[in-house]
Amino acid sequence: MLVALFLVLLAAKIGDEIFKRLGQPALIGEILAGVIIGPSVLAFVEPSATLEVFAELGVVFLLFWVGLETRLSDVREVGSTAIRVGVSGMLLPLVAGFAAARAFGESTETSLFVGAALVATSVGITSAVLLDLGALKSRAARTIIGAAVIDDILAMIFLAVAAGIAVSGGVNLVSILIVVGISLAFVAFVALGGTRVVARWPDVFHAPRFSESPLLPAVILCLGLAAIAAQIGLAAIIGAFLAGMVVAETRDRHNFEQEVAPLYAFFPPFFFVFIGLNVDLGALADIGVLAALAGITLLAVITKFLPAWLASRSLGARESLVVGVGMVPRGEVGIIVAGIGSTAGVITGSLFAVIVGMSIVTTLIVPPVLRSLLGATPDEPGPEA
Amino acid sequence: MLVALFLVLLAAKIGDEIFKRLGQPALIGEILAGVIIGPSVLAFVEPSATLEVFAELGVVFLLFWVGLETRLSDVREVGSTAIRVGVSGMLLPLVAGFAAARAFGESTETSLFVGAALVATSVGITSAVLLDLGALKSRAARTIIGAAVIDDILAMIFLAVAAGIAVSGGVNLVSILIVVGISLAFVAFVALGGTRVVARWPDVFHAPRFSESPLLPAVILCLGLAAIAAQIGLAAIIGAFLAGMVVAETRDRHNFEQEVAPLYAFFPPFFFVFIGLNVDLGALADIGVLAALAGITLLAVITKFLPAWLASRSLGARESLVVGVGMVPRGEVGIIVAGIGSTAGVITGSLFAVIVGMSIVTTLIVPPVLRSLLGATPDEPGPEA
Repeated sequence: MLVALFLVLLAAKIGDEIFKRLGQPALIGEILAGVIIGPSVLAFVEPSATLEVFAELGVVFLLFWVGLETRLSDVREVGSTAIRVGVSGMLLPLVAGFAAARAFGESTETSLFVGAALVATSVGITSAVLLDLGALKSRAARTIIGAAVIDDILAMIFLAVAAGIAVSGGVNLVSILIVVGISLAFVAFVALGGTRVVARWPDVFHAPRFSESPLLPAVILCLGLAAIAAQIGLAAIIGAFLAGMVVAETRDRHNFEQEVAPLYAFFPPFFFVFIGLNVDLGALADIGVLAALAGITLLAVITKFLPAWLASRSLGARESLVVGVGMVPRGEVGIIVAGIGSTAGVITGSLFAVIVGMSIVTTLIVPPVLRSLLGATPDEPGPEA
Repeated sequence: MLVALFLVLLAAKIGDEIFKRLGQPALIGEILAGVIIGPSVLAFVEPSATLEVFAELGVVFLLFWVGLETRLSDVREVGSTAIRVGVSGMLLPLVAGFAAARAFGESTETSLFVGAALVATSVGITSAVLLDLGALKSRAARTIIGAAVIDDILAMIFLAVAAGIAVSGGVNLVSILIVVGISLAFVAFVALGGTRVVARWPDVFHAPRFSESPLLPAVILCLGLAAIAAQIGLAAIIGAFLAGMVVAETRDRHNFEQEVAPLYAFFPPFFFVFIGLNVDLGALADIGVLAALAGITLLAVITKFLPAWLASRSLGARESLVVGVGMVPRGEVGIIVAGIGSTAGVITGSLFAVIVGMSIVTTLIVPPVLRSLLGATPDEPGPEA
């Protein structure tokens, strides 16, 4: 196992350095490094259950870091735009994915899953690029993150519906309403209550009677909220993001970030490499599968970009382009939906490879585009800068 | 899985804080926290394979940190004493453990494993206490660490012999000599060659063309050497310790330690809690088992303390007491030997519980004693202090 951890970190670092020198986003280098050491090419490393835990912690610490850089007031300011982007960017991919799958003769259950796989943006990927470019404070970035959280809540609801139909042929509206209520209550309680508590007692993580270092209490909060979010059916990263936002209210935030930085350097490479490990190049040898992949990827890009771009026009021409592009990557979320569909028996064989492929292609094409868009527009200073 | 990681860290932190307030070593609080959340009491967390990986990384980063604090010259200075302590502290427990098991009617194979389980000191436990007390630079501490490395090499050789006898009824001397040769060559090559390379190019981890931060390259080196050490049959922690010693030669070691500190805060609690998770209180309900545990623990303490104390008399009265006591904990090493013996089919049922119990009891009794010994003796400044 140590060998696998070593190989993943080494490959990630090499891919990272090569892509930085090419002027490309480092995370693409890390994903491709995963493809190369994975089962498709060298077969040095398998996507094992333990690596999946490290990958999960990777995206958890990534979003914790994003949360640390985010103030509640930043999110509030773009709130209505984020809601418009999140909702419209959820409906179109869902309907289009469902309709396309039906048109190709898939069953209703399968088509629901294809729709679901097109819904949720991977905020991890976009966040990593925005962080890398130091653009996390821009209004576009805050809109993307807010919309992605909303989008994830909606996708979670829809996935519960789709899984209910696939398993029992129907849905229990009451139980879904309960799940939705709990999710919204959790997000509101932590985002509003948690930040207020820490803002009121900014020394809570530094209190010497708790700890000589604020790191471990904050990491425990992060893992705890991530675990709760996962338990209630939300993505764990939403809990981690909220935890970061709460901790960001603490005293001496700058020193605190320095303490978290090494965890942020250590874990996220596992997340990116793990995405690469899931690539099955062999499944793409078939021309029909390749065509399906191209079609569904195009659909995924257009149906996400257009509504997000239109819904954020109020931010200005370039910023709305950034929002549209930034919402496109499906990353690990599409892979997770495909996995759930596979377990439920409705996403099988080449369709599984197509959905995973779509998730990865949308993930690979976005970072260079975002980078060139943001390179051209100097970061608009946030209210705190 | 996130829930398990959260519970382990939370329990570790609570145990840690309680024991600090009691004036006791924090790691005992963490081990007992593991007992309480483990299968024996609350059964919140099982010692799963993934937690074992986190525990392994915990002790790897612990020894990496110890290596960072150790200079090759420090080890050289106490070299001959460390060799005497390591060799004599290996022979007596081995012979006594074997003889005792034979006297109680165990087979030769089983008795060899009992002897092997008594041999190897858990340098992780003693290091953690010495680190905690800021006493890592004392001559006693350096002697313990040097002796524990030697002791581990000898134990590894003996374990290969015992496993060979248990599995095939004989040993292949040539293959064992090859393993010994490779191990010694690895340790010497890394300790002498690696430190020289870094001493010559102290910027190697800071070179901007490699990385904006020296952390990841150093962590990769640590995992790589740990993996190699494990592959050739040594403990992974020996590789990690050597990696730390190599990296310690780098420029700007102080800043570097600040970067590693968060990993050192995050992972080691998993190691200590995992030891606690392995406790099976139920197996100790039998009076015969309890008596065997008391007997073997007494044997383990005496046969390790006496030779280590005598062999280090040249360090002075108190320092030699510290060395004798510091060599006593068997920690994870005893548990690992019991596990190998269990896989080989020669350590079964209550004997397994007794050996694991001995490992944990020797681990729990040492830290308070060390603390009171070192509290009474102000740390003798090392050559660099």
